[in-house]
Amino acid sequence: MSAEDRESLVVDNIGTLLTMDPEAGEGPLGIIRGAAVHLDGGDIAWCGRSGDLPDSVRRAPGIDVIDVDGRVVTPGLIDCHTHLVFGGSREGEFAQRVAGATYQEIAAAGGGIVSTMRATRAASFEELVELGASRLATMLRFGVTTCEVKSGYGLSVEAELKMLRVIRALDGRQPVALVPTFLGAHALPPEFRRDREGYLGMVIREMIPAVVSEGLADFCDVFCEEGVFSVEESRRVLEAAKSAGLGIKVHADQLTPFGGARLAAELGAVSADHLEHAGDEALAALAAAGTVAVLLPGATFFLNQDFPNVRRFRDAGVSLAVSTDFNPGSSPGINLPLAGTMAAVRMGLPIEGVFAGMTVQAARAVGRQARVGTLSPGMAADLAVFDVADHRTILYRFGVNHCSMVIKDGRIVVP
Amino acid sequence: MSAEDRESLVVDNIGTLLTMDPEAGEGPLGIIRGAAVHLDGGDIAWCGRSGDLPDSVRRAPGIDVIDVDGRVVTPGLIDCHTHLVFGGSREGEFAQRVAGATYQEIAAAGGGIVSTMRATRAASFEELVELGASRLATMLRFGVTTCEVKSGYGLSVEAELKMLRVIRALDGRQPVALVPTFLGAHALPPEFRRDREGYLGMVIREMIPAVVSEGLADFCDVFCEEGVFSVEESRRVLEAAKSAGLGIKVHADQLTPFGGARLAAELGAVSADHLEHAGDEALAALAAAGTVAVLLPGATFFLNQDFPNVRRFRDAGVSLAVSTDFNPGSSPGINLPLAGTMAAVRMGLPIEGVFAGMTVQAARAVGRQARVGTLSPGMAADLAVFDVADHRTILYRFGVNHCSMVIKDGRIVVP
Repeated sequence: MSAEDRESLVVDNIGTLLTMDPEAGEGPLGIIRGAAVHLDGGDIAWCGRSGDLPDSVRRAPGIDVIDVDGRVVTPGLIDCHTHLVFGGSREGEFAQRVAGATYQEIAAAGGGIVSTMRATRAASFEELVELGASRLATMLRFGVTTCEVKSGYGLSVEAELKMLRVIRALDGRQPVALVPTFLGAHALPPEFRRDREGYLGMVIREMIPAVVSEGLADFCDVFCEEGVFSVEESRRVLEAAKSAGLGIKVHADQLTPFGGARLAAELGAVSADHLEHAGDEALAALAAAGTVAVLLPGATFFLNQDFPNVRRFRDAGVSLAVSTDFNPGSSPGINLPLAGTMAAVRMGLPIEGVFAGMTVQAARAVGRQARVGTLSPGMAADLAVFDVADHRTILYRFGVNHCSMVIKDGRIVVP
Repeated sequence: MSAEDRESLVVDNIGTLLTMDPEAGEGPLGIIRGAAVHLDGGDIAWCGRSGDLPDSVRRAPGIDVIDVDGRVVTPGLIDCHTHLVFGGSREGEFAQRVAGATYQEIAAAGGGIVSTMRATRAASFEELVELGASRLATMLRFGVTTCEVKSGYGLSVEAELKMLRVIRALDGRQPVALVPTFLGAHALPPEFRRDREGYLGMVIREMIPAVVSEGLADFCDVFCEEGVFSVEESRRVLEAAKSAGLGIKVHADQLTPFGGARLAAELGAVSADHLEHAGDEALAALAAAGTVAVLLPGATFFLNQDFPNVRRFRDAGVSLAVSTDFNPGSSPGINLPLAGTMAAVRMGLPIEGVFAGMTVQAARAVGRQARVGTLSPGMAADLAVFDVADHRTILYRFGVNHCSMVIKDGRIVVP
């Protein structure tokens, strides 16, 4: 294809460009002031100071030049931990929790994950695709261009495969790129209440092979927590997934210091997520293993838990990502920058760390760092434009959507 | 004026109408399912079940009928405590606080209220009007139709009057109705650092009379707190304001149990605001005095303080309102329903209490309960329409704006 046929775009007059590449600009965020980015054929062809962009590029036939009037531009944001596909809604449980019930009490009474499981099993493929598309449209408007999505509300071979096929269908049907994760070990479904071994056997011997043979997931995740799956049960599932060629992730140490983080490190998981109760030794193990710690402050907030301070994480040298954990039970907030504000305000994550956590570190947490999360030549042309003069305003003026334009693979998808 | 000339509108096919009048519908929120509201000449003419609306009204000449397709309708929301008019912005202090500095340390180093004072003094009248209008436009899109706004960043006779004149100008220039509050005793300006008595004398003998003679404020407020104004100093200002005919409000017991709430009760304040550290005796006094307690969870969140549990407030029988406290230092989040979610999740305020706190109780906290905060015949035709099927979703799906239409004084101002 000739140069004239390709989508080619210059984003110009950028007040503050966060490249997330410290070698490309100032400080840890690689900031370039007065910048331009040249996007060509879905990739970034060039980024730098506006004055350094060759006139031949600006004047190339068929090129579009967009003046963003001094606004802030970041890589398209990455939400690296979500449960975005589900049926039903759980306002009633929210009201119960506000009135004093705990998340575990609600789960024990048949609410929680199992209530969403029922609604998700009952929903048709098309219903789930429509619900997911509507949520992704909201997410996109906040600047998110890549989103990890887990199964785990099916909890049967058929329903888990349905969820993963919904995720695959959604990946092609709207602009946000999806990273599919198999989470068959999210909860024990009621029909296996007296047969843990039967369910685990089904996850390991039926679900994982079916998921892999259909190419439906990049990762396998396990909810390793007291009352859910033990460390040994989690290990069996994750080892089977690893042998089958999946990457691994772990829901670890959310409600108790249970050992999930150490397991994640031991097995070389790409990420360990939650970690509200992870001990220093576990954090050191994650750092040594290069496993990204994914902070999910929206869940900590919504479950009315104490927020962990990230100083311990940073002292241990762990890389930190920030995500919404969007789901209908513990984290129904889909606003990723708001999760970032919570990480800053309540967990003490510096503002630079929040931006890294929503871009380059989130990319690492989903194994896509070679393509997204950083703005440099050859990377995906995924950009979010924010209608602010200072990138810190995106977190400071919390609860409002500051994103005014989104570009995905070089195309303007939110104008 | 004849009936045909008046603005007349029927909002029909309302899935859930929160009248906030327990006698008009079910439960404490006075809910009517399958409702309609007839608005006429800026007032509510009728509300009830859609089927009970006389056909003659629907078919009246010149009437507009809007079908809201089963959505939720509430009274226009009321943000009863804001500092919405100011110059400058304080992202830098936010970054410092995330890195560990306290609000008081930042204030002691010349940041805090005084930094906004300098920027507000330096800003022109027109600049402040434009900044305020832009913020009010955001607030309106969240469903807010009445907003209290305080002075307090001028801290000189001239600059306090400028702020209050800006508020008056804004009140006529955009749809949100404003309730002006004089807060000359917000901080001691640097030029009076060694002359507290001089500043207090100026507030009492120059500012209050000037504010009253120009009719610029409905209320006088004082920041009664350790290191700001003592209980005795606050009392002198508030008594002077009361004698001059202003209603009174108090910033009370935010950072320490300082005595502000008791003072508010003693003086019959319309509201006592913050109250994170108010003791049981103080709460009982507020209840006895009929003073509304205004919860400001956005400030508690953003200052990384512990949230008080409202059980003590409710046990004491205090009426509770919820507000953003929108300001550039301690609460830069302008999203009122998000403050409501925080009040529910982190303070234990039941969902019914949150809706009352953003409507009927907020109206009481600004002395406008005869006109706004409730939907019944004769009240102002101020409505917010939310694109949800269950009113609890507005709080549950936090961080996203669910408001899809706003009507103020019978006119559609957000279509």
